[in-house]
Amino acid sequence: MSIVVVGTIGYDTVDTDHGSVSEALGGSASFFGLAARFFAPVSIVAAVGTDFKPEHWQLFRERSIDLRGMAQIEGPTFRWHGRYHEDMNIRDTVSLALNVFAGFKPDLLPDQQRADYVFLSNISPDLQLHVLSQIASPKVVAADTMNHWIANERPALVKLLPRLDLLTLNDEEARMLSGESNLVRAGRAILKMGPDTVLIKRGEYGVLKFSADAMFAVPAWPLEEVIDPTGAGDTFAGALMGWLARTGRVNESILRTGIVYGSVLASFVVEQFSVDRLAALTWEDIQERYRAFIELTDSHHSRWMSQ
Amino acid sequence: MSIVVVGTIGYDTVDTDHGSVSEALGGSASFFGLAARFFAPVSIVAAVGTDFKPEHWQLFRERSIDLRGMAQIEGPTFRWHGRYHEDMNIRDTVSLALNVFAGFKPDLLPDQQRADYVFLSNISPDLQLHVLSQIASPKVVAADTMNHWIANERPALVKLLPRLDLLTLNDEEARMLSGESNLVRAGRAILKMGPDTVLIKRGEYGVLKFSADAMFAVPAWPLEEVIDPTGAGDTFAGALMGWLARTGRVNESILRTGIVYGSVLASFVVEQFSVDRLAALTWEDIQERYRAFIELTDSHHSRWMSQ
Repeated sequence: MSIVVVGTIGYDTVDTDHGSVSEALGGSASFFGLAARFFAPVSIVAAVGTDFKPEHWQLFRERSIDLRGMAQIEGPTFRWHGRYHEDMNIRDTVSLALNVFAGFKPDLLPDQQRADYVFLSNISPDLQLHVLSQIASPKVVAADTMNHWIANERPALVKLLPRLDLLTLNDEEARMLSGESNLVRAGRAILKMGPDTVLIKRGEYGVLKFSADAMFAVPAWPLEEVIDPTGAGDTFAGALMGWLARTGRVNESILRTGIVYGSVLASFVVEQFSVDRLAALTWEDIQERYRAFIELTDSHHSRWMSQ
Repeated sequence: MSIVVVGTIGYDTVDTDHGSVSEALGGSASFFGLAARFFAPVSIVAAVGTDFKPEHWQLFRERSIDLRGMAQIEGPTFRWHGRYHEDMNIRDTVSLALNVFAGFKPDLLPDQQRADYVFLSNISPDLQLHVLSQIASPKVVAADTMNHWIANERPALVKLLPRLDLLTLNDEEARMLSGESNLVRAGRAILKMGPDTVLIKRGEYGVLKFSADAMFAVPAWPLEEVIDPTGAGDTFAGALMGWLARTGRVNESILRTGIVYGSVLASFVVEQFSVDRLAALTWEDIQERYRAFIELTDSHHSRWMSQ
């Protein structure tokens, strides 16, 4: 079953203590799509400018990503420039230019309106609602958000939350949205605001899942080196939604497996700048790290019982 | 099989944003002993002063903790005063007085010298070596350490490390000891310094285990409220060593179960000041949270397959 994602596609400039990249392919829809496509067909709704490079159209097309929902608009593509601290959990936005994304109000294609899986990536809640309103009867609606929308667009965000099956956000955003400093309280408070499942992303410390059924805590894959954390959250969401679409249903077991696949794909994307690692990734790479991840976190140790 | 622990027993004054306690029972051997005793017989080697209260002798005795190795010395008992920041991962030592613990050089009793399980809690590496040298043929030797010894007693610590089956330390200490800022590199570097297993304690983010066999990552039990983190690490070590002593052998499966029991007991001790929660704890409390912990972290979801 296919997935529709609405979000940005743009060019990123990223500075870290270990290196930099400029004008590299980025944006939430890029990372999401390149992760989700391993699991299920994915259709991107986004806007790019006339400077969007042919090689990047090509990169998506070669990976069977549906681009019919991409508008090419006169003007420059979305740009973001970020700088990571030595502690890579912290970053500053040096500059941000929406460019052709400003004022983008997409009309979905008829088949996109019948999508079962929808991901509303980190864009304004109004735009998230605008896209969602066009989808007839989605099975799973997931969204991401950020501090900017929580602070400045709270009413629209609060209106969106009850319509979500799944909300992803990081620990700082969860504290901000809920007003609770303790993460467990924050997760539970956000559940009461509407989403069936809340996923708090804690970077190198993993993910906490809150839902009425059960809490789930999973560490991140331990990496010896992180080159560029950009896109990890969207990559996580892409693999998770991809897994849900691939299985065609949702229960606790399927959600947990999806969260692990999300963690696995996110652990790959940060190994290189931009989408480079995702673009080079194979299904075998994913399966190998998935199995290793299960062994890493297997606290009831069935695999080890025979030792 | 029985466990010998050497460490401090003292009176703690603890300030947090939510409350304070003064002159409360604390010290590494107290927390370790009160956790380990649920799993196996435990014998404490420590020194207290003449002001050590009868009710605290009583508290240990009622829980079948062997106190024959406790020296009562003329003078005041060990005192520690700590203050936690709003972020409870950070604390300052306001004052520390070794008192009768200064110059304590214990001679173990004959049956203690035959101990199979030894925990050298966070005391000087010289004293750790002094105690270890008296034990004939231990099966499992574990130790904890801290920034002070890493900075000021590195040669003795480096001498101790190859004699350890297990070293526990927190993330900051692991970075300091190894000189590596990345925790995975730090864990692997410390392994090369001698211990068979290195356990990096990350507080609310759980534990990373490094050994030649396999890495293991486990989150902490998510708590809605932390009252006092003091003693969490020693409680963790107590339950882990208790579990190893109870099973009588060590393999990957047993180690992982022990780490989960350690995490479970640590999640209880921080719910109240001092040893209060440990002293009131029952075996049923432990088993209930152990089962809940396994469900919380069960990423290969066998329990959920039938849903």
